Amino acid sequence: MTSTKILIKGGKVVNDDWSQISDVYIEDGKIKAVGINLPLSGDVNVVDATDKLVIPGGIDTHTHMEFSFMGAKAVDDFYIGTKAALAGGTTMILDFVIPQKGQSLLEAFENWKSSADPKVCCDYSLHVAVTWWSEKVKKDMQILVEEKGVNSFKMFMAYKDVFMLQDHELYLAFCHCKDLGAVAQVHAENGHLIAEGAKKMLSMGITGPEGHELCRPEEVEAEATQRAITIANSVNCPLYIVHVMSKSAAKIVANARREGKVVFGEPIAAGLGTDGSHYWNEDWAHAAKFVMGPPLRPDPSTPGYLMDLLANDDLSVTGTDNCTFKICQKALGKDDFTKIPNGVNGVEDRMSVIWEKGVHTGKMDENRFVAVTSSTAAKIFNLYPQKGRIAKGSDADIVVWDPSTTRVISAQTHHQAVEYNIFEGMECHGVPVVTICGGQVVYKDGILHATPGQGRYVHRNAFSEFVYKRVKQREKVNKPKPVRRVPYGGPILSVSNQNEVMSLENENFHQ
Amino acid sequence: MTSTKILIKGGKVVNDDWSQISDVYIEDGKIKAVGINLPLSGDVNVVDATDKLVIPGGIDTHTHMEFSFMGAKAVDDFYIGTKAALAGGTTMILDFVIPQKGQSLLEAFENWKSSADPKVCCDYSLHVAVTWWSEKVKKDMQILVEEKGVNSFKMFMAYKDVFMLQDHELYLAFCHCKDLGAVAQVHAENGHLIAEGAKKMLSMGITGPEGHELCRPEEVEAEATQRAITIANSVNCPLYIVHVMSKSAAKIVANARREGKVVFGEPIAAGLGTDGSHYWNEDWAHAAKFVMGPPLRPDPSTPGYLMDLLANDDLSVTGTDNCTFKICQKALGKDDFTKIPNGVNGVEDRMSVIWEKGVHTGKMDENRFVAVTSSTAAKIFNLYPQKGRIAKGSDADIVVWDPSTTRVISAQTHHQAVEYNIFEGMECHGVPVVTICGGQVVYKDGILHATPGQGRYVHRNAFSEFVYKRVKQREKVNKPKPVRRVPYGGPILSVSNQNEVMSLENENFHQ
Amino acid sequence: MTSTKILIKGGKVVNDDWSQISDVYIEDGKIKAVGINLPLSGDVNVVDATDKLVIPGGIDTHTHMEFSFMGAKAVDDFYIGTKAALAGGTTMILDFVIPQKGQSLLEAFENWKSSADPKVCCDYSLHVAVTWWSEKVKKDMQILVEEKGVNSFKMFMAYKDVFMLQDHELYLAFCHCKDLGAVAQVHAENGHLIAEGAKKMLSMGITGPEGHELCRPEEVEAEATQRAITIANSVNCPLYIVHVMSKSAAKIVANARREGKVVFGEPIAAGLGTDGSHYWNEDWAHAAKFVMGPPLRPDPSTPGYLMDLLANDDLSVTGTDNCTFKICQKALGKDDFTKIPNGVNGVEDRMSVIWEKGVHTGKMDENRFVAVTSSTAAKIFNLYPQKGRIAKGSDADIVVWDPSTTRVISAQTHHQAVEYNIFEGMECHGVPVVTICGGQVVYKDGILHATPGQGRYVHRNAFSEFVYKRVKQREKVNKPKPVRRVPYGGPILSVSNQNEVMSLENENFHQ
Amino acid sequence: MTSTKILIKGGKVVNDDWSQISDVYIEDGKIKAVGINLPLSGDVNVVDATDKLVIPGGIDTHTHMEFSFMGAKAVDDFYIGTKAALAGGTTMILDFVIPQKGQSLLEAFENWKSSADPKVCCDYSLHVAVTWWSEKVKKDMQILVEEKGVNSFKMFMAYKDVFMLQDHELYLAFCHCKDLGAVAQVHAENGHLIAEGAKKMLSMGITGPEGHELCRPEEVEAEATQRAITIANSVNCPLYIVHVMSKSAAKIVANARREGKVVFGEPIAAGLGTDGSHYWNEDWAHAAKFVMGPPLRPDPSTPGYLMDLLANDDLSVTGTDNCTFKICQKALGKDDFTKIPNGVNGVEDRMSVIWEKGVHTGKMDENRFVAVTSSTAAKIFNLYPQKGRIAKGSDADIVVWDPSTTRVISAQTHHQAVEYNIFEGMECHGVPVVTICGGQVVYKDGILHATPGQGRYVHRNAFSEFVYKRVKQREKVNKPKPVRRVPYGGPILSVSNQNEVMSLENENFHQ
Repeated sequence: MTSTKILIKGGKVVNDDWSQISDVYIEDGKIKAVGINLPLSGDVNVVDATDKLVIPGGIDTHTHMEFSFMGAKAVDDFYIGTKAALAGGTTMILDFVIPQKGQSLLEAFENWKSSADPKVCCDYSLHVAVTWWSEKVKKDMQILVEEKGVNSFKMFMAYKDVFMLQDHELYLAFCHCKDLGAVAQVHAENGHLIAEGAKKMLSMGITGPEGHELCRPEEVEAEATQRAITIANSVNCPLYIVHVMSKSAAKIVANARREGKVVFGEPIAAGLGTDGSHYWNEDWAHAAKFVMGPPLRPDPSTPGYLMDLLANDDLSVTGTDNCTFKICQKALGKDDFTKIPNGVNGVEDRMSVIWEKGVHTGKMDENRFVAVTSSTAAKIFNLYPQKGRIAKGSDADIVVWDPSTTRVISAQTHHQAVEYNIFEGMECHGVPVVTICGGQVVYKDGILHATPGQGRYVHRNAFSEFVYKRVKQREKVNKPKPVRRVPYGGPILSVSNQNEVMSLENENFHQ
Repeated sequence: MTSTKILIKGGKVVNDDWSQISDVYIEDGKIKAVGINLPLSGDVNVVDATDKLVIPGGIDTHTHMEFSFMGAKAVDDFYIGTKAALAGGTTMILDFVIPQKGQSLLEAFENWKSSADPKVCCDYSLHVAVTWWSEKVKKDMQILVEEKGVNSFKMFMAYKDVFMLQDHELYLAFCHCKDLGAVAQVHAENGHLIAEGAKKMLSMGITGPEGHELCRPEEVEAEATQRAITIANSVNCPLYIVHVMSKSAAKIVANARREGKVVFGEPIAAGLGTDGSHYWNEDWAHAAKFVMGPPLRPDPSTPGYLMDLLANDDLSVTGTDNCTFKICQKALGKDDFTKIPNGVNGVEDRMSVIWEKGVHTGKMDENRFVAVTSSTAAKIFNLYPQKGRIAKGSDADIVVWDPSTTRVISAQTHHQAVEYNIFEGMECHGVPVVTICGGQVVYKDGILHATPGQGRYVHRNAFSEFVYKRVKQREKVNKPKPVRRVPYGGPILSVSNQNEVMSLENENFHQ
Repeated sequence: MTSTKILIKGGKVVNDDWSQISDVYIEDGKIKAVGINLPLSGDVNVVDATDKLVIPGGIDTHTHMEFSFMGAKAVDDFYIGTKAALAGGTTMILDFVIPQKGQSLLEAFENWKSSADPKVCCDYSLHVAVTWWSEKVKKDMQILVEEKGVNSFKMFMAYKDVFMLQDHELYLAFCHCKDLGAVAQVHAENGHLIAEGAKKMLSMGITGPEGHELCRPEEVEAEATQRAITIANSVNCPLYIVHVMSKSAAKIVANARREGKVVFGEPIAAGLGTDGSHYWNEDWAHAAKFVMGPPLRPDPSTPGYLMDLLANDDLSVTGTDNCTFKICQKALGKDDFTKIPNGVNGVEDRMSVIWEKGVHTGKMDENRFVAVTSSTAAKIFNLYPQKGRIAKGSDADIVVWDPSTTRVISAQTHHQAVEYNIFEGMECHGVPVVTICGGQVVYKDGILHATPGQGRYVHRNAFSEFVYKRVKQREKVNKPKPVRRVPYGGPILSVSNQNEVMSLENENFHQ
Repeated sequence: MTSTKILIKGGKVVNDDWSQISDVYIEDGKIKAVGINLPLSGDVNVVDATDKLVIPGGIDTHTHMEFSFMGAKAVDDFYIGTKAALAGGTTMILDFVIPQKGQSLLEAFENWKSSADPKVCCDYSLHVAVTWWSEKVKKDMQILVEEKGVNSFKMFMAYKDVFMLQDHELYLAFCHCKDLGAVAQVHAENGHLIAEGAKKMLSMGITGPEGHELCRPEEVEAEATQRAITIANSVNCPLYIVHVMSKSAAKIVANARREGKVVFGEPIAAGLGTDGSHYWNEDWAHAAKFVMGPPLRPDPSTPGYLMDLLANDDLSVTGTDNCTFKICQKALGKDDFTKIPNGVNGVEDRMSVIWEKGVHTGKMDENRFVAVTSSTAAKIFNLYPQKGRIAKGSDADIVVWDPSTTRVISAQTHHQAVEYNIFEGMECHGVPVVTICGGQVVYKDGILHATPGQGRYVHRNAFSEFVYKRVKQREKVNKPKPVRRVPYGGPILSVSNQNEVMSLENENFHQ
């Protein structure tokens, strides 16, 4: 691809700290200038952004493209998925490498990367899951951090016997993350309780999607969240809770932050834009679409509450857990909700859903929107200001956003591989009109110009300053110190001489 | 012993619902009448209670008499311990049977009972600990409930590898307690974190008693409390948290109760009357006296906070965890805090400490005092109104309490077997002047008249109404019901045919 | 009426501390005996209570019979209202004397009592509102307490210019209540904000019942609740919040209690049994039925939350605010919601609603039901154990309650004077089958045998022990003490000599 | 002064979003370039910042220079005060114009500005207090906003009869602020309770500084904070709580923000760096130094808690309430704490205190430090990025900060006009080494080069985007709408015909 010069003219450039009418000049995939009335040379592609916002391209912190899970393979592969992302204003994804128990993390990473590289239409990076524990795993983690650009590891507290770690393994994993300068991530649900709850529901004849929520109510999520925070804090390890789905869990994250703990919560588009009442829908297929773990919550005040916390920086960033299965795949669990492949769509609609539910409602302003859709993710994962900011020197991942147009989300028009959309029918007031990724116009006037393999894998360095500055300082100043004492010099009662001593001291007994 | 007739004259009888000037007439170990100007016959022993309170004898919900633990044996045996209890106004204790892992619960129960029976000076009952899990344990629990008068079982979340149960074992134990109509009790601390924390402290050269608190800060207690509540609630099992020692844990109990969970919190005299700043005392022996698990907390606002919650019925009952080791026994851990035998005194002073910190301060009134020192314990453990109430037909376990006298707590004058007292020097405004136990005056004018073996083991029936009425009703009305649906009749994508299906449905993909 | 002897046989007597199968023998309006197999003499009226509960008659803490308000007069007068109460299992009401600003409290009290005495079918007592402030009011309050049996005064923080007191008047009223040993009650809503809110809604064209809630959302109630608690606590005055209607306000009460403040919250039947979504009903008349102040809340989780708090003793007692206006009276506000007479029914259905939403759901047990429907009210208002307990010597106000029958609430069958019922259609599992009031069977087999004037005005003494024991003790022990200091002896800068002093001390200035 | 060119070389430039090694080039009072290896021309003054931080100059949001209050005049005038500010790394202050009741706001503003202009050594701006209410006040507010560059108004809820507004005046003031696009500020304490509390303390013989806190405990602050938030929220007016001094009040602010309310809390250096235990000091003069309103709190965990909330953006910005009175002035209240002039120092030490207690402890990082000491204040008061950011085009108000040096705060060395320092003896790890203000080096190597009148008054535009974007959007989308209904067409009961109607409808009455 030849170098493209682009001048975005007349828009309001929105960063996470403020907004300003400015032109943005792009060359060689980088932002070269931000300013008023930038000069226009002949070979420049001009994008008119008058009356529109110019925002950093979205970063989806949580996807599972083409993931094989529960007997099915997610139908959004890295090509379709990233293409859909671009159509929605997202220019980078962070996907998950999830090794089987016993599998080399390095190997799983290389496999996943190999699969992604030729397909991705936007930049991406990879979190790696730690699904088992051994010296080999420790070593692999170190190599991944030091050589492969990985600075985040996810541990499962759910999916017992499949991915779940025990508490002492969590402890060791957190210790190691801290030493390596990585962010520890957890899927926070109590796997024991889910397993037992599922058995109970099935035994009561509850086999439909409502059983999925009933067997893992929000207490189960909240408990694990509290536990993960406690364990991580005990080793001064920064913690990132993926897909915070309930009011209870979100409140625990918010309270921990208020107490000063270094913890980040990630709500997802599904949790912010819809709720778990759908599990009770009388159409099985409809209900099944929404099955994901942790489940969406039936309490209808949940999405608004999560958005309030996201607006207030009690929650930090947003992903989607995009992992799309068609109805015919969901149907693997038609007689048993525990067999319904878990996953929902979101990678395409995340930006619009958050704008609609967050900005249009007045809960957050455009700057906070940028923070929660890209900047803060970039800071946490050590990509800032290369990503997540419109500034000279940053990557040219930019979206021209029209806050005064509306669109209606629908599977009829979306770019994802599933035949339904969990946000079907939602009217959104904010719409991406142009997406520029890596300095190329990849989406404009509703037309995608994305090319497989156009995106690159992005290395992320360890010890992200945003996360680790406080951690390091605490490590330095918060060490407890022993009390200085004169050694105890009195008698010691060993077990063997107890009777003797007791009789000796009987004078101490009063009637 | 001959039948004794006693008339307590002119006192203010205090029950948990109200107080009233009344005489109390006792015969054959039972209260025969409560009323004004009861007639006086010739052979009646008259106790003058003018200007004094007449209260139900205290019930200490948590003792470990003569317990062998960490290489030492508690010096208060059932004789000394119950004698001291009587001197302080406590007329019943609930002690713990703690089997070794692998040991028969029944056998351990019988051993412990055999040891206690000839020594106890007051009535007692026995909680039994579940320290391991098997079909045999289940069966033993059933026999203990159905035949041996046990309706409470304690599970440890701490003391890893010694007494600790894993989460899935907790789950099973709670299920079984619910089925049997017993109260599940937990020692709520995260055993993994304690083990790791202790290693860390020692590695940093912190070997003194301050390390005891530093390795198991209150988050560790709070986390386990939350976890236990979540697990118990998932199976609708009533839960009782023994020794709530921190503000964090107490708050979790209080919040759970506010949400309607059937959970009870038990603070202890030590936690209400002193704090963990002593661990930093420069005299090793002084610091070691206070070592118990969970530790007392260094935050000086802890005791007042716990008392506020106790006054408000956020916490329910009070015990002591009385488990006394002499300094020479504590000295087993003189170079390593993890080896200091855990335990403090309290069985004698509990009533006075709670009066002083609770009633004298105006935080609770005399009726709530009775509730938290006896009535509520009697209700939870299904002894009410046999115990915990002054009413016709109840056991004659009664204390004449003088709210206008003071005493100073001291090892010089106490009746326990240890040579120190963690409340040393505390002035208490409320003083027991007469203790009547089983219809006998056992303590009067500072003189004990207690006889070993005078007390009896008290059977406790299962399904305590106070605890289980709500549990049963919830069981009945809260069953989830499946959604009625037309069965899904569409295609199903098995893994083997995924590629095919995907190609078929490609028309859904938009560019 | 001749003395009636009644024996209630074979029922389960339920008090607030426990339940027990017992007979209850009644003579001369009093309970003479409670016990098993009480003897039966010839002239005794036997009431069979087998398989039923025998509970203390309900005490409705909050009614406004025949109250003239907002241009209408409540259609339940003391006759109809108390008759309906009896049919529902309530045997005592506490009504409100509400003087106009400037009117003598004593005179208003005497008028109200004169009106009630000939009509009441059950015992009653009177709270008196303090709607203005002066020396005369203070004196009247004293007489009411010392001579008229009043121990509770209500102050309005709402109804600006009509009943509302200013904050400094509240302060003085609370001080005076504390001195007199009375309970201060408040209607807690911010009257300024309501007035402004109402103007705003009308100006926006919102004239229907939904405007009633929109102009006084729950923040307005929560704010006033917090303010009242703060003011009362500053003078150590016990406080009772009438009609706690919102989650926010209830939470403030609960938190204050947790901090040890002597405060009581009273939810009402309407708030526990229905919600404010009705204000948005498209039928004006339907919506108007629910108009009361503070409004019912549109958040559908409100009733369940209030019940959880009531079950947990975060809220204490229950009333109804029974103040019934017919639709034709409500219609005074057909074009302006501020003119809709405020008030709802409840005095008849309170017991059944609480049983259904509280006991049948498993949130509380039968003992707590008795506490919240009668015993705790009796304790707070110093009527215990004359009222609120089934015990020898107590008034024979008793209800035989059938927990296994159901009834459906309906205006078609109720005994109140309004032609609608806000609980219309609610199925209730608990039903009063016999009501005994003052030793007479007044309701049985669906037939009322009530006689106007049968009830008596009940004197209530000041300094209720349940409320004031803690207050008095705090008064005694919590007095702050001055720090002892050597008097300051240095120079003093009076305003007149400031310039001089400043120049003198310029040497303190550094560059 | 001639134009100065400055090149700050080799430092780490710290903005609120990230840090980066960069040079900063300054000319004509503005930052002209930020980048690596900026070229160096001959006439440039080079400031070496190697191993140091280059941060935006501090903005003190709350000062009272030369304020006459309680019979004394603050000894830091605009010259001394701003000079001291510069020495501490603060390059802008926001002072308060406080008119007497009845005085023209405009006039008071002009007087205060006239007094400040010739003295200030750094830029400044002026908040204006609204101490009374009238049409004239409204008009003055409008002129101040539209012509005088004022966008913030402070209302007092304390200082009864002096500055305090009544609630309905607060309401009107908030409405007007919202209309004008200004930020409403409040001093949140309940003035009634303070007045009564003070009387009570004096009557109990408590005349010393401890009475100051005892008469206005933190509940009094929390109550007013809640009230202000409720009133402001009811009119959708952004609110700024000045000097948040207690845990209770801070928690209320934090919770309101979590619920989405547009509210900002300002802790001050005194509250973050010391506590109210000093009021109990036995040396009167020592105790009196700390007297300010609201008082510092005796709970020793307060400063750490406030810092945690500041770190977490639950509190937003920091001021000092700098209002310094010498001991001889404080002595006006030597026999009556209500006469001690209220005020403390802080303008010089704020930056160091926050660094020490916030950054050195690991509670916040250097970026958050910049946010809370300058950037967020600049955003709220619409000065950003002119102030509060190191970027091309911003004002050259810059501090070179050495995080590895320490200094000890002392009145011996400080530059303020008082002879004591409330932070006396505090060791601070962060030290300003060079202060550049308006493009001039005004402090270097411990030497001040400040000139009176060097600073300018800074106009602040209304409708700060940071504050008002959300407010405007909510205004637009949150308007309630009336329910559409068929008009009520039934009968209406007017008061005059009530009897008639009631008799007509008697058939509704059941027995």
